[in-house]
Amino acid sequence: MRVMGIDPGLRNMGWGVIEVHGSRVTHVANGICRSDGDDLALRLLSLHVQLSEVIMAHKPDSAAVEQTFVNKDGAGTLKLGQARGIAMLVPAQAGLTVGEYAPNKIKKTVVGVGHADKRQIDHMVRLQLPGAEIAGPDAADALAIALCHAWHGRAQTGLSAAIQRASA
Amino acid sequence: MRVMGIDPGLRNMGWGVIEVHGSRVTHVANGICRSDGDDLALRLLSLHVQLSEVIMAHKPDSAAVEQTFVNKDGAGTLKLGQARGIAMLVPAQAGLTVGEYAPNKIKKTVVGVGHADKRQIDHMVRLQLPGAEIAGPDAADALAIALCHAWHGRAQTGLSAAIQRASA
Repeated sequence: MRVMGIDPGLRNMGWGVIEVHGSRVTHVANGICRSDGDDLALRLLSLHVQLSEVIMAHKPDSAAVEQTFVNKDGAGTLKLGQARGIAMLVPAQAGLTVGEYAPNKIKKTVVGVGHADKRQIDHMVRLQLPGAEIAGPDAADALAIALCHAWHGRAQTGLSAAIQRASA
Repeated sequence: MRVMGIDPGLRNMGWGVIEVHGSRVTHVANGICRSDGDDLALRLLSLHVQLSEVIMAHKPDSAAVEQTFVNKDGAGTLKLGQARGIAMLVPAQAGLTVGEYAPNKIKKTVVGVGHADKRQIDHMVRLQLPGAEIAGPDAADALAIALCHAWHGRAQTGLSAAIQRASA
């Protein structure tokens, strides 16, 4: 089973795809879709095109998107929401179910504690996906979301043991 | 020139299309795209399908989306942002430029004051588009956005006079 994780953002949208076979999990690909400029509609269109291409290229069976923290900055939340709308839409258009996980749940699953920092997530993702070249922190977060989804999804029992071994 | 206005919302997404010929503006169609249920990805997909059908049916040349107020409720803002992402994406996918207007600017253009209430907007929209059957407040808001876009866009000079006549 191929699982895709998406870390939504308007400027940088991280994505990561992993392959899950029972308790074995391997890295497939990861990257970052980028958008900038003043025209919001064109930025969203560009993210939609890039993310659709990723799904066409790597053919995941299932996807998950981070249920992003709502911070105090309303304008920032609205921007993030717009990007997140695209992150949810694209896999749904490809016929995939789309899981949602809170950041704390992702951290707890991948690192073992709910308040892990970026370095710890990056470290645990590299440990669980040895040899993966990671495109940046947003791509590492996306791979963490994919690992979390694999663990809480269909591959639960087998993968749980693999993550516990890697974390031990 | 056909102008489409969209009032973004996750549950109710209002839309309205008007035709602009110099100083003359006529109603084409309006309605509300609806989504409900627990699966956010499927709701966004449903809004995307419905809004794409509206654009295919009525073939606007230009579109505008309300630049929604960021309220104090962060979760609400995130939801709205996700729906707004779809509202911006769909016309961009159809090759249209997408304008954005703050609620106060829309009210000031259509009613004459920046703090008009829903009833005043509804009244002025009906006055400017006589005979239009309006599907509800979200559709009236969408028609107001279309009128605002027509006025500030290409049809500016002629339509300005028409709105001033209707408001007199």
